[in-house]
Amino acid sequence: MAAINSNFLKLKAGYLFPEIARRVKAYGEAHPELAARVIRCGIGDVTEPLPAAAVKAMHEGVAELGVRETFKGYGPEQGYEFLRQAIVDHQFAGLGIAADEVFISDGSKCDTGNILDIFGKGNIIAITDPVYPVYVDTNVMAGNTGDADAKGTYDGLLYLPCNAANNFVAEVPAVKADLIYLCFPNNPTGAVATRPQLEAWVKYARENDAVILFDAAYEAYIRDPAIPHSIFEIEGARDCAIEFRSFSKNGGFTGVRCGYIIIPKSVSGRAADGTRVPLHQLWSRRHSTKFNGASYPVQKAAAALFSTEGQPQVAALIDHYMGNAKLLREAAAAAGLAVFGGENAPYVWVACPAGLSSWDMFDKMLGEAQVVITPGSGFGSAGEGYFRISAFNSRANVEEVCRRLKALLA
Amino acid sequence: MAAINSNFLKLKAGYLFPEIARRVKAYGEAHPELAARVIRCGIGDVTEPLPAAAVKAMHEGVAELGVRETFKGYGPEQGYEFLRQAIVDHQFAGLGIAADEVFISDGSKCDTGNILDIFGKGNIIAITDPVYPVYVDTNVMAGNTGDADAKGTYDGLLYLPCNAANNFVAEVPAVKADLIYLCFPNNPTGAVATRPQLEAWVKYARENDAVILFDAAYEAYIRDPAIPHSIFEIEGARDCAIEFRSFSKNGGFTGVRCGYIIIPKSVSGRAADGTRVPLHQLWSRRHSTKFNGASYPVQKAAAALFSTEGQPQVAALIDHYMGNAKLLREAAAAAGLAVFGGENAPYVWVACPAGLSSWDMFDKMLGEAQVVITPGSGFGSAGEGYFRISAFNSRANVEEVCRRLKALLA
Repeated sequence: MAAINSNFLKLKAGYLFPEIARRVKAYGEAHPELAARVIRCGIGDVTEPLPAAAVKAMHEGVAELGVRETFKGYGPEQGYEFLRQAIVDHQFAGLGIAADEVFISDGSKCDTGNILDIFGKGNIIAITDPVYPVYVDTNVMAGNTGDADAKGTYDGLLYLPCNAANNFVAEVPAVKADLIYLCFPNNPTGAVATRPQLEAWVKYARENDAVILFDAAYEAYIRDPAIPHSIFEIEGARDCAIEFRSFSKNGGFTGVRCGYIIIPKSVSGRAADGTRVPLHQLWSRRHSTKFNGASYPVQKAAAALFSTEGQPQVAALIDHYMGNAKLLREAAAAAGLAVFGGENAPYVWVACPAGLSSWDMFDKMLGEAQVVITPGSGFGSAGEGYFRISAFNSRANVEEVCRRLKALLA
Repeated sequence: MAAINSNFLKLKAGYLFPEIARRVKAYGEAHPELAARVIRCGIGDVTEPLPAAAVKAMHEGVAELGVRETFKGYGPEQGYEFLRQAIVDHQFAGLGIAADEVFISDGSKCDTGNILDIFGKGNIIAITDPVYPVYVDTNVMAGNTGDADAKGTYDGLLYLPCNAANNFVAEVPAVKADLIYLCFPNNPTGAVATRPQLEAWVKYARENDAVILFDAAYEAYIRDPAIPHSIFEIEGARDCAIEFRSFSKNGGFTGVRCGYIIIPKSVSGRAADGTRVPLHQLWSRRHSTKFNGASYPVQKAAAALFSTEGQPQVAALIDHYMGNAKLLREAAAAAGLAVFGGENAPYVWVACPAGLSSWDMFDKMLGEAQVVITPGSGFGSAGEGYFRISAFNSRANVEEVCRRLKALLA
């Protein structure tokens, strides 16, 4: 008899975004006359075309595969040197990161999920609340939690509450944690951590021999020059942190698929026999055993984002989405709602009108304004009473959302 | 203190192919004057360009991403309907497989590794010996084995010996297994299973409530019309088997990255509380939580392999490699070696000359003939005394390998 991984049965009914998709689909079927009016500001998915430099490079990569002399089969599992070096040169210059500390993948969702393969049992896992659901669900699947209560809070996880009082940046806990998920700029709240806040986290991690899993998928959206883009800007982080990066939100690669992890050779964990083992060595083995490299034309396209042509094109994309975020912030504030995020991140985090839960507001926005937002409670119980508006959209759609939001709450 | 997954420390020094790459690199550095003479028949990596239909479709996919009106962000995690349907229509017609039982991924190595996520602890895992190392190593990582002995045999796995006596097709064991990895056409031996042999396996799995993990990555190479291409050609397999497929070896996608799993809704496992849970539901959750869909232009290219233009192009690729396999078989036989495989598979499996171990033969072929083969012992202790020659090469290279093989053993 084949035993299944029963931890899966602890998972709540659906991953947040499939559940949203289900409700939107049901709404469209119930109200076919309004279906075309629906504007999606739910899932954080880009809407604008790929930068021309990426398109050109990807075409070139495809063409190479069509000719024997330039054909490429299996690439290095860790990624092509040309991309690893471009990443180091353009994203981590001066931070002491070497090209062989970069592992290219097919995306950050995969990386943030798969990373648990290299960690053992019994770790105290700290996650912020609200949080990107993948961190939680993958820990549930891995057996690192107990059961969930009615609010979806799992026994065995150390939740770090984020709220208006701490401006949605979790404070270092008084108790011990072994693995700490941090995401800045934050999904879903759009919050950013200051340098002193990150310094406190690195200090905590070093004192507790913990590892910080730092998700910087949205770093390109940081506007404030005082805010660090990478955990490795903090002294000592090389000994206690790994960082996740993605091309999804800067280069618009959500459908192209490319991300990467930085694992310094100096960060390590403890084996059952007490010896210290570099995480770099473990992930290298994991990556070469369970992964076979990202698609070659995709890696070519990713590298082109760092080219002389690519850089201003990426900057223009970011400017576009951040212009959207500004409009959404202003509209929500004008409608009398408390607004967070959206200044260094493509997500605007908004308090629901008094008396409405997150899913109430979701249903209201969908049913009365045909706008899809993401209910804050979907990101954790501390997200209850908030909703997230994604700035990933056309300008025209965002302007229309602003009008509808004002009308709805007038 | 962050605990690592100490199971990783049970793994042998290196995954087979990185170890081969290391030896080839060292040889090239020690003998720079001979480095250019090296012909690689080791790793099973395709050498011929992508079919023109796939190149065309991939260009089209890239172009769509460059224009707002046709831009696509996140796709369905399970894959685009156009590809899932094409697979069902062209690969599983009449076998009762529905499009929503197909899960598209970035490759079969990932799928065969990641599948363990949905299974629990305590399963008896049966693998053939020799075997594709990923099956073993991912079970080691998942904690499904004990330690390895000096030959690399892991405690806790049920090894099914394959040898000349059973023509390298494992017999159904007398004892109970819960998960059974089968790969036909086989990597590394090139063996194929007859219909009665597969029927015996399906019968065994049903009687033992076991799940067959059927790896059919090489099915396109089957020439004998009596040999099944899919486990689902066997009655009852829908209740006890899942199947892995890949575009790597038919469409030459090793660097493009695309594969898929077929999980019928009727195959299930047992939860800790005794309830039966469909594997389809578990993998669906795993896939949507830890994966974000395969690259869109890649999926377009994969679908084009089934088009009117694509089919004969794929057939021509297969013919090319199988022509190579025939030459290699003949040359090895002419050199007085016992030869297996290579008739319905792109791998030729050869007994080493008397007195030579697999790695002896590897070193001899590299050092004296500048030909890279794969030592059979790298696939398990029962592979000792054999080596694998890959037919993935140009015709000119294969002809040269044949000449060198004859000269070496004359």
